[in-house]
Amino acid sequence: MTRADKADRAIGIFDSGVGGLTVLKRIAQRLPHEHLCYLGDTARVPYGTKSADTVIRYARSCAARLTERGIKLLVVACNTASAYALETLSSELPVPVIGVVEPGAREAVRRSRNGRIGVIGTTGTVASGAYARAISALNSDIRVYSKACPLFVPLAEEGWTRGELPRSVARTYLAGFSARRIDTLVLGCTHYPLLRGPIAAVAGPGVLLVDSARETEKAVEAVLREQGLLRAASTPGRHQFLVSDAPATFARVGARFLGHPLTGVEWVDVQTG
Amino acid sequence: MTRADKADRAIGIFDSGVGGLTVLKRIAQRLPHEHLCYLGDTARVPYGTKSADTVIRYARSCAARLTERGIKLLVVACNTASAYALETLSSELPVPVIGVVEPGAREAVRRSRNGRIGVIGTTGTVASGAYARAISALNSDIRVYSKACPLFVPLAEEGWTRGELPRSVARTYLAGFSARRIDTLVLGCTHYPLLRGPIAAVAGPGVLLVDSARETEKAVEAVLREQGLLRAASTPGRHQFLVSDAPATFARVGARFLGHPLTGVEWVDVQTG
Repeated sequence: MTRADKADRAIGIFDSGVGGLTVLKRIAQRLPHEHLCYLGDTARVPYGTKSADTVIRYARSCAARLTERGIKLLVVACNTASAYALETLSSELPVPVIGVVEPGAREAVRRSRNGRIGVIGTTGTVASGAYARAISALNSDIRVYSKACPLFVPLAEEGWTRGELPRSVARTYLAGFSARRIDTLVLGCTHYPLLRGPIAAVAGPGVLLVDSARETEKAVEAVLREQGLLRAASTPGRHQFLVSDAPATFARVGARFLGHPLTGVEWVDVQTG
Repeated sequence: MTRADKADRAIGIFDSGVGGLTVLKRIAQRLPHEHLCYLGDTARVPYGTKSADTVIRYARSCAARLTERGIKLLVVACNTASAYALETLSSELPVPVIGVVEPGAREAVRRSRNGRIGVIGTTGTVASGAYARAISALNSDIRVYSKACPLFVPLAEEGWTRGELPRSVARTYLAGFSARRIDTLVLGCTHYPLLRGPIAAVAGPGVLLVDSARETEKAVEAVLREQGLLRAASTPGRHQFLVSDAPATFARVGARFLGHPLTGVEWVDVQTG
Protein backbone atom coordinates (compact mmCIF):
# COMPACT_ATOMS: atom_id res chain seq x y z
CA MET A 1 0.00 0.00 0.00
CA THR A 2 1.30 3.48 -0.82
CA ARG A 3 1.51 6.12 1.86
CA ALA A 4 -1.23 8.09 0.04
CA ASP A 5 -3.53 5.05 0.21
CA LYS A 6 -2.82 4.69 3.89
CA ALA A 7 -3.38 8.43 4.50
CA ASP A 8 -6.81 8.04 2.90
CA ARG A 9 -7.88 5.66 5.64
CA ALA A 10 -10.14 6.81 8.48
CA ILE A 11 -9.21 7.80 11.99
CA GLY A 12 -10.92 5.30 14.32
CA ILE A 13 -12.45 6.64 17.54
CA PHE A 14 -14.18 4.64 20.24
CA ASP A 15 -15.93 5.36 23.50
CA SER A 16 -18.17 3.38 25.85
CA GLY A 17 -21.10 5.40 24.52
CA VAL A 18 -22.03 8.80 23.20
CA GLY A 19 -19.66 11.01 25.26
CA GLY A 20 -16.70 10.54 22.92
CA LEU A 21 -18.57 12.45 20.24
CA THR A 22 -17.20 15.61 21.87
CA VAL A 23 -13.73 14.33 20.90
CA LEU A 24 -14.89 13.45 17.37
CA LYS A 25 -16.36 16.95 17.00
CA ARG A 26 -13.05 18.62 17.85
CA ILE A 27 -11.09 16.33 15.55
CA ALA A 28 -13.55 17.08 12.74
CA GLN A 29 -13.19 20.83 13.29
CA ARG A 30 -9.40 20.70 13.34
CA LEU A 31 -9.03 18.13 10.55
CA PRO A 32 -12.09 18.55 8.30
CA HIS A 33 -10.63 16.48 5.44
CA GLU A 34 -10.12 13.37 7.53
CA HIS A 35 -12.46 10.40 7.35
CA LEU A 36 -13.65 9.47 10.85
CA CYS A 37 -15.10 6.16 12.01
CA TYR A 38 -16.68 6.27 15.48
CA LEU A 39 -17.72 3.27 17.56
CA GLY A 40 -19.92 3.71 20.66
CA ASP A 41 -20.13 0.55 22.78
CA THR A 42 -23.66 1.36 23.91
CA ALA A 43 -24.48 -2.30 24.69
CA ARG A 44 -21.89 -2.44 27.47
CA VAL A 45 -21.85 1.17 28.66
CA PRO A 46 -20.73 2.31 31.23
CA TYR A 47 -17.07 1.26 31.51
CA GLY A 48 -16.36 3.44 34.56
CA THR A 49 -17.84 1.01 37.08
CA LYS A 50 -16.19 -2.12 35.69
CA SER A 51 -12.91 -3.91 36.43
CA ALA A 52 -9.61 -3.38 34.61
CA ASP A 53 -9.82 -6.88 33.06
CA THR A 54 -13.27 -6.28 31.67
CA VAL A 55 -12.49 -2.79 30.38
CA ILE A 56 -9.37 -4.12 28.62
CA ARG A 57 -11.40 -6.93 27.07
CA TYR A 58 -14.04 -4.45 25.87
CA ALA A 59 -11.43 -2.01 24.55
CA ARG A 60 -9.76 -4.83 22.59
CA SER A 61 -13.01 -5.84 20.90
CA CYS A 62 -13.90 -2.22 20.04
CA ALA A 63 -10.42 -1.70 18.59
CA ALA A 64 -10.78 -4.93 16.59
CA ARG A 65 -14.07 -3.77 15.01
CA LEU A 66 -12.35 -0.55 13.91
CA THR A 67 -8.99 -1.95 12.76
CA GLU A 68 -10.68 -4.62 10.63
CA ARG A 69 -12.26 -1.78 8.65
CA GLY A 70 -8.81 -0.35 7.98
CA ILE A 71 -7.94 2.70 10.08
CA LYS A 72 -4.67 4.62 10.21
CA LEU A 73 -4.84 5.73 13.85
CA LEU A 74 -6.99 4.90 16.88
CA VAL A 75 -8.31 7.42 19.40
CA VAL A 76 -9.53 6.03 22.72
CA ALA A 77 -12.06 8.76 23.49
CA CYS A 78 -13.02 7.32 26.86
CA ASN A 79 -11.11 8.15 30.02
CA THR A 80 -11.67 4.78 31.70
CA ALA A 81 -10.57 2.84 28.61
CA SER A 82 -7.58 5.17 28.19
CA ALA A 83 -6.68 4.71 31.85
CA TYR A 84 -6.85 0.90 31.83
CA ALA A 85 -6.24 -0.22 28.25
CA LEU A 86 -3.97 2.24 26.46
CA GLU A 87 -0.76 0.28 27.03
CA THR A 88 -2.36 -2.99 25.94
CA LEU A 89 -3.81 -1.48 22.77
CA SER A 90 -0.59 0.38 21.93
CA SER A 91 1.45 -2.82 22.17
CA GLU A 92 -1.02 -4.98 20.25
CA LEU A 93 -2.28 -2.79 17.41
CA PRO A 94 -0.52 -2.04 14.10
CA VAL A 95 -1.54 1.67 14.23
CA PRO A 96 -0.72 4.53 16.62
CA VAL A 97 -3.10 4.75 19.60
CA ILE A 98 -3.94 8.04 21.34
CA GLY A 99 -5.87 8.27 24.61
CA VAL A 100 -7.42 11.23 26.42
CA VAL A 101 -5.54 10.94 29.72
CA GLU A 102 -2.10 12.04 28.48
CA PRO A 103 -3.33 15.19 26.65
CA GLY A 104 -5.47 16.15 29.66
CA ALA A 105 -2.58 15.63 32.07
CA ARG A 106 -0.29 17.71 29.84
CA GLU A 107 -2.75 20.60 29.69
CA ALA A 108 -3.27 20.53 33.49
CA VAL A 109 0.47 20.62 34.14
CA ARG A 110 0.86 23.49 31.68
CA ARG A 111 -1.92 25.52 33.36
CA SER A 112 -1.34 24.91 37.10
CA ARG A 113 0.52 27.72 38.89
CA ASN A 114 0.73 26.25 42.40
CA GLY A 115 1.45 22.62 41.46
CA ARG A 116 -1.70 21.26 43.13
CA ILE A 117 -4.03 19.53 40.69
CA GLY A 118 -7.36 17.82 41.32
CA VAL A 119 -8.70 15.04 39.10
CA ILE A 120 -12.30 13.84 38.98
CA GLY A 121 -13.45 10.83 36.97
CA THR A 122 -15.23 7.49 37.08
CA THR A 123 -14.47 4.92 39.75
CA GLY A 124 -12.30 3.05 37.22
CA THR A 125 -10.33 6.07 36.05
CA VAL A 126 -9.57 7.14 39.62
CA ALA A 127 -8.76 3.59 40.78
CA SER A 128 -6.33 3.16 37.87
CA GLY A 129 -4.20 6.09 39.03
CA ALA A 130 -3.55 6.89 35.37
CA TYR A 131 -3.80 10.68 35.70
CA ALA A 132 -1.53 10.79 38.75
CA ARG A 133 1.07 8.71 36.85
CA ALA A 134 0.80 10.82 33.69
CA ILE A 135 1.11 14.08 35.65
CA SER A 136 4.04 12.78 37.73
CA ALA A 137 5.83 11.69 34.58
CA LEU A 138 5.62 15.28 33.32
CA ASN A 139 6.51 16.93 36.65
CA SER A 140 7.16 14.86 39.73
CA ASP A 141 6.81 17.89 42.05
CA ILE A 142 3.13 18.28 41.32
CA ARG A 143 0.65 16.98 43.92
CA VAL A 144 -2.41 15.20 42.51
CA TYR A 145 -5.66 14.68 44.43
CA SER A 146 -8.32 12.44 42.90
CA LYS A 147 -11.99 11.82 43.57
CA ALA A 148 -14.41 9.42 41.86
CA CYS A 149 -17.79 11.01 41.11
CA PRO A 150 -20.06 8.12 39.99
CA LEU A 151 -23.26 10.17 39.97
CA PHE A 152 -22.03 12.77 37.46
CA VAL A 153 -22.49 10.52 34.40
CA PRO A 154 -26.14 9.59 35.05
CA LEU A 155 -26.83 13.20 36.05
CA ALA A 156 -25.44 14.44 32.71
CA GLU A 157 -27.28 11.73 30.78
CA GLU A 158 -30.55 12.65 32.49
CA GLY A 159 -29.90 16.26 31.40
CA TRP A 160 -29.98 17.57 34.98
CA THR A 161 -27.08 19.96 34.52
CA ARG A 162 -28.48 23.18 36.01
CA GLY A 163 -30.04 24.26 39.29
CA GLU A 164 -29.68 23.17 42.87
CA LEU A 165 -29.60 19.40 42.43
CA PRO A 166 -26.37 19.04 40.39
CA ARG A 167 -24.78 21.75 42.51
CA SER A 168 -25.63 19.79 45.64
CA VAL A 169 -24.09 16.63 44.13
CA ALA A 170 -20.99 18.61 43.12
CA ARG A 171 -20.69 20.04 46.64
CA THR A 172 -20.67 16.53 48.11
CA TYR A 173 -17.99 15.24 45.73
CA LEU A 174 -15.75 18.31 45.67
CA ALA A 175 -15.86 19.10 49.41
CA GLY A 176 -12.44 17.52 50.02
CA PHE A 177 -10.64 19.63 47.41
CA SER A 178 -10.88 23.01 49.16
CA ALA A 179 -8.49 21.98 51.95
CA ARG A 180 -6.06 20.78 49.24
CA ARG A 181 -5.88 24.28 47.74
CA ILE A 182 -5.89 23.00 44.16
CA ASP A 183 -5.80 25.62 41.39
CA THR A 184 -6.58 23.23 38.52
CA LEU A 185 -9.25 20.53 38.25
CA VAL A 186 -9.17 17.95 35.45
CA LEU A 187 -12.63 16.88 34.21
CA GLY A 188 -11.46 13.31 33.61
CA CYS A 189 -14.58 11.95 31.92
CA THR A 190 -16.11 12.98 28.58
CA HIS A 191 -19.50 13.55 30.24
CA TYR A 192 -18.29 16.03 32.84
CA PRO A 193 -18.04 19.12 30.60
CA LEU A 194 -21.86 18.99 30.47
CA LEU A 195 -21.75 19.70 34.22
CA ARG A 196 -19.16 22.47 33.90
CA GLY A 197 -21.63 25.04 35.32
CA PRO A 198 -22.28 23.43 38.73
CA ILE A 199 -18.70 22.12 39.01
CA ALA A 200 -17.25 25.58 38.37
CA ALA A 201 -19.71 27.19 40.80
CA VAL A 202 -18.73 24.80 43.59
CA ALA A 203 -14.97 24.74 42.83
CA GLY A 204 -14.89 28.55 42.90
CA PRO A 205 -13.22 31.19 40.71
CA GLY A 206 -9.69 30.25 41.87
CA VAL A 207 -9.86 26.82 40.22
CA LEU A 208 -9.30 26.37 36.48
CA LEU A 209 -11.23 23.49 34.89
CA VAL A 210 -9.37 21.42 32.30
CA ASP A 211 -11.38 19.30 29.88
CA SER A 212 -9.33 16.11 29.53
CA ALA A 213 -10.36 15.51 25.93
CA ARG A 214 -9.73 19.09 24.83
CA GLU A 215 -6.16 18.68 23.65
CA THR A 216 -6.57 15.24 22.10
CA GLU A 217 -7.17 16.60 18.59
CA LYS A 218 -3.80 18.35 18.70
CA ALA A 219 -2.07 15.06 19.56
CA VAL A 220 -3.92 13.38 16.67
CA GLU A 221 -2.77 16.03 14.20
CA ALA A 222 0.82 15.91 15.48
CA VAL A 223 1.10 12.12 15.10
CA LEU A 224 -0.47 12.07 11.62
CA ARG A 225 1.77 14.92 10.47
CA GLU A 226 4.87 13.24 11.89
CA GLN A 227 4.06 9.98 10.10
CA GLY A 228 3.07 11.71 6.85
CA LEU A 229 -0.46 10.35 7.17
CA LEU A 230 -2.60 13.51 6.95
CA ARG A 231 -5.15 13.06 4.18
CA ALA A 232 -4.16 15.18 1.17
CA ALA A 233 -7.58 15.44 -0.55
CA SER A 234 -9.47 18.71 -0.23
CA THR A 235 -12.89 17.06 -0.17
CA PRO A 236 -14.62 16.89 3.23
CA GLY A 237 -13.99 13.70 5.21
CA ARG A 238 -16.75 11.11 5.62
CA HIS A 239 -18.04 10.39 9.12
CA GLN A 240 -19.26 6.92 9.93
CA PHE A 241 -20.94 5.80 13.16
CA LEU A 242 -21.09 2.30 14.62
CA VAL A 243 -22.86 1.26 17.83
CA SER A 244 -23.34 -2.00 19.69
CA ASP A 245 -26.90 -1.12 20.80
CA ALA A 246 -29.84 1.03 19.73
CA PRO A 247 -28.68 2.97 16.61
CA ALA A 248 -31.79 5.19 16.60
CA THR A 249 -31.24 6.33 20.20
CA PHE A 250 -27.59 7.03 19.43
CA ALA A 251 -28.55 9.07 16.35
CA ARG A 252 -30.98 11.15 18.39
CA VAL A 253 -28.68 11.82 21.36
CA GLY A 254 -25.64 12.16 19.12
CA ALA A 255 -27.31 14.92 17.09
CA ARG A 256 -27.49 16.97 20.30
CA PHE A 257 -23.76 16.47 20.86
CA LEU A 258 -22.80 17.34 17.26
CA GLY A 259 -25.36 20.01 16.49
CA HIS A 260 -26.45 18.35 13.23
CA PRO A 261 -28.43 15.23 12.27
CA LEU A 262 -26.64 11.90 12.30
CA THR A 263 -27.56 9.46 9.56
CA GLY A 264 -26.71 5.85 8.77
CA VAL A 265 -25.72 4.74 12.26
CA GLU A 266 -24.83 1.06 11.91
CA TRP A 267 -25.13 -1.74 14.50
CA VAL A 268 -22.06 -3.92 15.05
CA ASP A 269 -21.53 -7.01 17.17
CA VAL A 270 -18.74 -6.29 19.66
CA GLN A 271 -19.06 -9.60 21.49
CA THR A 272 -17.01 -11.61 19.01
CA GLY A 273 -13.36 -11.43 18.06
CA MET B 1 -33.72 -38.73 35.94
CA THR B 2 -36.06 -39.40 38.85
CA ARG B 3 -38.23 -36.62 40.21
CA ALA B 4 -36.15 -36.69 43.45
CA ASP B 5 -32.97 -36.12 41.41
CA LYS B 6 -34.59 -33.24 39.63
CA ALA B 7 -35.90 -31.76 42.91
CA ASP B 8 -32.34 -31.78 44.21
CA ARG B 9 -31.26 -29.34 41.49
CA ALA B 10 -30.77 -25.66 42.25
CA ILE B 11 -33.13 -22.77 41.62
CA GLY B 12 -31.35 -20.46 39.15
CA ILE B 13 -31.66 -16.71 39.72
CA PHE B 14 -30.22 -13.96 37.57
CA ASP B 15 -30.06 -10.19 37.63
CA SER B 16 -28.07 -7.54 35.78
CA GLY B 17 -26.02 -7.07 38.95
CA VAL B 18 -26.30 -7.21 42.69
CA GLY B 19 -29.89 -5.97 43.19
CA GLY B 20 -31.44 -9.39 42.64
CA LEU B 21 -29.82 -10.60 45.86
CA THR B 22 -32.86 -9.14 47.66
CA VAL B 23 -34.93 -11.72 45.75
CA LEU B 24 -32.45 -14.50 46.57
CA LYS B 25 -32.59 -13.53 50.25
CA ARG B 26 -36.38 -13.89 50.39
CA ILE B 27 -36.32 -17.20 48.53
CA ALA B 28 -33.65 -18.48 50.94
CA GLN B 29 -35.76 -17.43 53.94
CA ARG B 30 -38.91 -19.05 52.60
CA LEU B 31 -37.22 -22.16 51.18
CA PRO B 32 -34.09 -22.75 53.30
CA HIS B 33 -33.53 -26.30 52.00
CA GLU B 34 -33.30 -25.26 48.36
CA HIS B 35 -29.98 -24.99 46.55
CA LEU B 36 -29.70 -21.56 44.90
CA CYS B 37 -27.44 -20.53 42.04
CA TYR B 38 -27.27 -16.76 41.44
CA LEU B 39 -25.77 -15.07 38.39
CA GLY B 40 -25.09 -11.31 38.41
CA ASP B 41 -24.23 -9.95 34.95
CA THR B 42 -21.95 -7.29 36.39
CA ALA B 43 -19.94 -6.95 33.16
CA ARG B 44 -22.96 -5.63 31.27
CA VAL B 45 -24.93 -3.91 34.03
CA PRO B 46 -27.19 -1.90 33.79
CA TYR B 47 -29.93 -3.42 31.62
CA GLY B 48 -32.42 -0.61 32.27
CA THR B 49 -30.93 1.79 29.73
CA LYS B 50 -30.53 -0.75 26.91
CA SER B 51 -32.77 -1.82 24.04
CA ALA B 52 -35.22 -4.74 24.09
CA ASP B 53 -33.08 -6.69 21.59
CA THR B 54 -29.95 -6.33 23.69
CA VAL B 55 -31.69 -7.15 26.98
CA ILE B 56 -33.22 -10.27 25.41
CA ARG B 57 -29.79 -11.33 24.11
CA TYR B 58 -28.22 -10.78 27.54
CA ALA B 59 -31.06 -12.60 29.34
CA ARG B 60 -30.65 -15.57 26.97
CA SER B 61 -26.93 -15.87 27.69
CA CYS B 62 -27.43 -15.56 31.48
CA ALA B 63 -30.14 -18.23 31.33
CA ALA B 64 -27.81 -20.46 29.27
CA ARG B 65 -25.03 -20.22 31.88
CA LEU B 66 -27.51 -21.32 34.56
CA THR B 67 -29.37 -24.03 32.66
CA GLU B 68 -26.14 -25.70 31.56
CA ARG B 69 -25.38 -26.23 35.26
CA GLY B 70 -28.69 -28.04 35.67
CA ILE B 71 -31.38 -25.97 37.37
CA LYS B 72 -35.01 -26.90 38.00
CA LEU B 73 -36.53 -23.40 37.78
CA LEU B 74 -35.31 -19.97 36.67
CA VAL B 75 -36.09 -16.70 38.46
CA VAL B 76 -35.54 -13.51 36.46
CA ALA B 77 -34.79 -11.22 39.42
CA CYS B 78 -34.44 -8.10 37.28
CA ASN B 79 -37.41 -5.98 36.34
CA THR B 80 -36.05 -4.89 32.96
CA ALA B 81 -35.15 -8.45 31.94
CA SER B 82 -38.56 -9.66 33.21
CA ALA B 83 -40.28 -6.91 31.26
CA TYR B 84 -38.50 -7.57 27.95
CA ALA B 85 -37.40 -11.21 28.00
CA LEU B 86 -39.81 -13.31 30.07
CA GLU B 87 -41.87 -14.56 27.12
CA THR B 88 -38.76 -15.44 25.11
CA LEU B 89 -37.17 -17.33 28.00
CA SER B 90 -40.41 -19.11 28.91
CA SER B 91 -40.86 -20.37 25.35
CA GLU B 92 -37.23 -21.42 24.87
CA LEU B 93 -36.19 -22.96 28.20
CA PRO B 94 -36.92 -26.49 29.44
CA VAL B 95 -37.68 -25.26 33.00
CA PRO B 96 -40.38 -22.97 34.46
CA VAL B 97 -39.42 -19.26 34.37
CA ILE B 98 -40.67 -16.74 36.95
CA GLY B 99 -40.19 -12.98 36.64
CA VAL B 100 -40.72 -10.17 39.13
CA VAL B 101 -43.24 -8.11 37.14
CA GLU B 102 -46.21 -10.46 37.45
CA PRO B 103 -45.93 -10.95 41.25
CA GLY B 104 -45.49 -7.19 41.75
CA ALA B 105 -48.49 -6.40 39.54
CA ARG B 106 -50.61 -8.96 41.41
CA GLU B 107 -49.72 -7.49 44.81
CA ALA B 108 -50.46 -3.92 43.61
CA VAL B 109 -53.88 -4.94 42.28
CA ARG B 110 -54.65 -6.73 45.55
CA ARG B 111 -53.71 -3.67 47.63
CA SER B 112 -55.11 -0.74 45.66
CA ARG B 113 -58.43 0.59 46.94
CA ASN B 114 -59.13 3.31 44.37
CA GLY B 115 -57.89 1.49 41.25
CA ARG B 116 -55.19 4.07 40.48
CA ILE B 117 -51.69 2.58 40.52
CA GLY B 118 -48.33 4.23 39.87
CA VAL B 119 -45.30 2.32 38.57
CA ILE B 120 -41.70 3.52 38.70
CA GLY B 121 -38.81 1.68 37.09
CA THR B 122 -35.91 1.89 34.66
CA THR B 123 -36.30 3.45 31.22
CA GLY B 124 -36.52 -0.07 29.75
CA THR B 125 -39.12 -1.38 32.20
CA VAL B 126 -41.36 1.66 31.69
CA ALA B 127 -40.89 1.66 27.89
CA SER B 128 -41.84 -2.02 27.73
CA GLY B 129 -45.28 -1.34 29.25
CA ALA B 130 -45.00 -4.72 31.01
CA TYR B 131 -46.50 -3.60 34.33
CA ALA B 132 -49.43 -1.86 32.66
CA ARG B 133 -50.15 -5.03 30.64
CA ALA B 134 -49.82 -7.32 33.67
CA ILE B 135 -52.10 -5.10 35.78
CA SER B 136 -54.69 -4.74 32.99
CA ALA B 137 -54.74 -8.51 32.53
CA LEU B 138 -55.69 -8.85 36.20
CA ASN B 139 -58.22 -6.00 36.24
CA SER B 140 -58.84 -3.92 33.14
CA ASP B 141 -60.60 -1.16 35.14
CA ILE B 142 -57.41 -0.14 36.91
CA ARG B 143 -55.56 2.97 35.67
CA VAL B 144 -51.78 2.68 35.55
CA TYR B 145 -49.41 5.68 35.48
CA SER B 146 -45.70 5.04 34.86
CA LYS B 147 -42.54 7.07 35.25
CA ALA B 148 -38.94 6.14 34.47
CA CYS B 149 -36.50 7.21 37.23
CA PRO B 150 -32.99 6.64 35.78
CA LEU B 151 -31.15 8.36 38.61
CA PHE B 152 -32.51 6.11 41.36
CA VAL B 153 -30.19 3.17 40.56
CA PRO B 154 -26.90 5.14 40.68
CA LEU B 155 -28.17 6.98 43.76
CA ALA B 156 -28.83 3.68 45.55
CA GLU B 157 -25.49 2.23 44.39
CA GLU B 158 -23.68 5.32 45.67
CA GLY B 159 -25.42 4.77 49.01
CA TRP B 160 -27.03 8.21 49.00
CA THR B 161 -30.36 7.01 50.35
CA ARG B 162 -31.02 9.52 53.14
CA GLY B 163 -31.18 13.30 53.46
CA GLU B 164 -32.18 16.11 51.17
CA LEU B 165 -30.50 14.98 47.95
CA PRO B 166 -32.43 11.71 47.30
CA ARG B 167 -35.60 13.44 48.47
CA SER B 168 -35.04 16.19 45.94
CA VAL B 169 -34.52 13.62 43.17
CA ALA B 170 -37.67 11.78 44.28
CA ARG B 171 -39.67 15.04 44.25
CA THR B 172 -38.64 15.67 40.64
CA TYR B 173 -39.60 12.19 39.46
CA LEU B 174 -42.80 11.76 41.48
CA ALA B 175 -44.24 15.26 40.93
CA GLY B 176 -46.64 14.04 38.24
CA PHE B 177 -48.26 11.36 40.42
CA SER B 178 -50.05 13.64 42.88
CA ALA B 179 -52.51 14.90 40.25
CA ARG B 180 -53.20 11.23 39.34
CA ARG B 181 -54.38 10.50 42.90
CA ILE B 182 -52.69 7.08 43.00
CA ASP B 183 -53.01 5.11 46.24
CA THR B 184 -50.40 2.44 45.35
CA LEU B 185 -46.92 2.83 43.90
CA VAL B 186 -44.98 -0.16 42.54
CA LEU B 187 -41.20 0.01 43.11
CA GLY B 188 -40.48 -1.68 39.78
CA CYS B 189 -36.71 -2.12 40.17
CA THR B 190 -34.80 -4.23 42.70
CA HIS B 191 -32.70 -1.20 43.71
CA TYR B 192 -35.60 1.04 44.64
CA PRO B 193 -36.42 -0.45 48.06
CA LEU B 194 -33.09 1.03 49.20
CA LEU B 195 -34.69 4.44 48.51
CA ARG B 196 -37.95 3.56 50.25
CA GLY B 197 -37.42 6.36 52.81
CA PRO B 198 -37.24 9.35 50.45
CA ILE B 199 -39.80 7.82 48.04
CA ALA B 200 -42.32 7.30 50.88
CA ALA B 201 -41.69 10.79 52.25
CA VAL B 202 -42.38 12.38 48.87
CA ALA B 203 -45.29 10.11 47.88
CA GLY B 204 -47.02 10.85 51.20
CA PRO B 205 -48.87 8.70 53.75
CA GLY B 206 -51.81 8.04 51.42
CA VAL B 207 -49.69 6.00 48.99
CA LEU B 208 -48.79 2.37 49.69
CA LEU B 209 -45.43 1.25 48.29
CA VAL B 210 -45.29 -2.22 46.74
CA ASP B 211 -41.91 -3.89 46.31
CA SER B 212 -42.18 -5.67 42.97
CA ALA B 213 -39.92 -8.53 44.00
CA ARG B 214 -41.63 -9.09 47.34
CA GLU B 215 -44.08 -11.75 46.26
CA THR B 216 -41.76 -13.59 43.89
CA GLU B 217 -40.70 -16.16 46.47
CA LYS B 218 -44.35 -17.17 46.92
CA ALA B 219 -44.67 -17.77 43.18
CA VAL B 220 -41.47 -19.86 43.26
CA GLU B 221 -42.77 -22.03 46.08
CA ALA B 222 -46.17 -22.46 44.42
CA VAL B 223 -44.67 -23.64 41.11
CA LEU B 224 -42.22 -26.05 42.77
CA ARG B 225 -44.97 -27.50 44.94
CA GLU B 226 -47.34 -27.90 42.01
CA GLN B 227 -44.67 -29.73 39.99
CA GLY B 228 -43.53 -31.85 42.96
CA LEU B 229 -40.06 -30.31 42.76
CA LEU B 230 -39.54 -29.00 46.30
CA ARG B 231 -36.28 -30.41 47.68
CA ALA B 232 -37.05 -33.12 50.26
CA ALA B 233 -33.74 -33.08 52.17
CA SER B 234 -33.66 -31.38 55.55
CA THR B 235 -30.06 -30.16 55.13
CA PRO B 236 -29.61 -26.45 54.38
CA GLY B 237 -29.42 -25.55 50.69
CA ARG B 238 -26.10 -24.52 49.14
CA HIS B 239 -25.84 -21.01 47.70
CA GLN B 240 -23.58 -20.44 44.73
CA PHE B 241 -22.72 -17.08 43.17
CA LEU B 242 -21.56 -16.40 39.62
CA VAL B 243 -20.64 -13.01 38.15
CA SER B 244 -19.44 -11.79 34.76
CA ASP B 245 -17.15 -9.12 36.31
CA ALA B 246 -15.24 -8.37 39.52
CA PRO B 247 -16.05 -11.25 41.94
CA ALA B 248 -14.36 -9.49 44.89
CA THR B 249 -16.47 -6.34 44.46
CA PHE B 250 -19.60 -8.45 44.19
CA ALA B 251 -18.69 -10.37 47.37
CA ARG B 252 -18.19 -7.11 49.27
CA VAL B 253 -21.37 -5.37 48.09
CA GLY B 254 -23.36 -8.60 48.22
CA ALA B 255 -22.48 -9.13 51.88
CA ARG B 256 -24.23 -5.82 52.64
CA PHE B 257 -27.35 -7.05 50.82
CA LEU B 258 -27.40 -10.44 52.53
CA GLY B 259 -26.10 -9.50 55.96
CA HIS B 260 -23.43 -12.23 55.98
CA PRO B 261 -20.13 -12.83 54.16
CA LEU B 262 -20.23 -14.23 50.65
CA THR B 263 -17.53 -16.73 49.73
CA GLY B 264 -16.48 -18.47 46.55
CA VAL B 265 -17.93 -16.03 44.04
CA GLU B 266 -16.99 -17.42 40.63
CA TRP B 267 -16.36 -15.56 37.36
CA VAL B 268 -18.23 -16.78 34.27
CA ASP B 269 -18.04 -15.74 30.64
CA VAL B 270 -21.50 -14.59 29.53
CA GLN B 271 -20.40 -13.45 26.09
CA THR B 272 -20.49 -16.90 24.50
CA GLY B 273 -23.36 -19.28 23.74
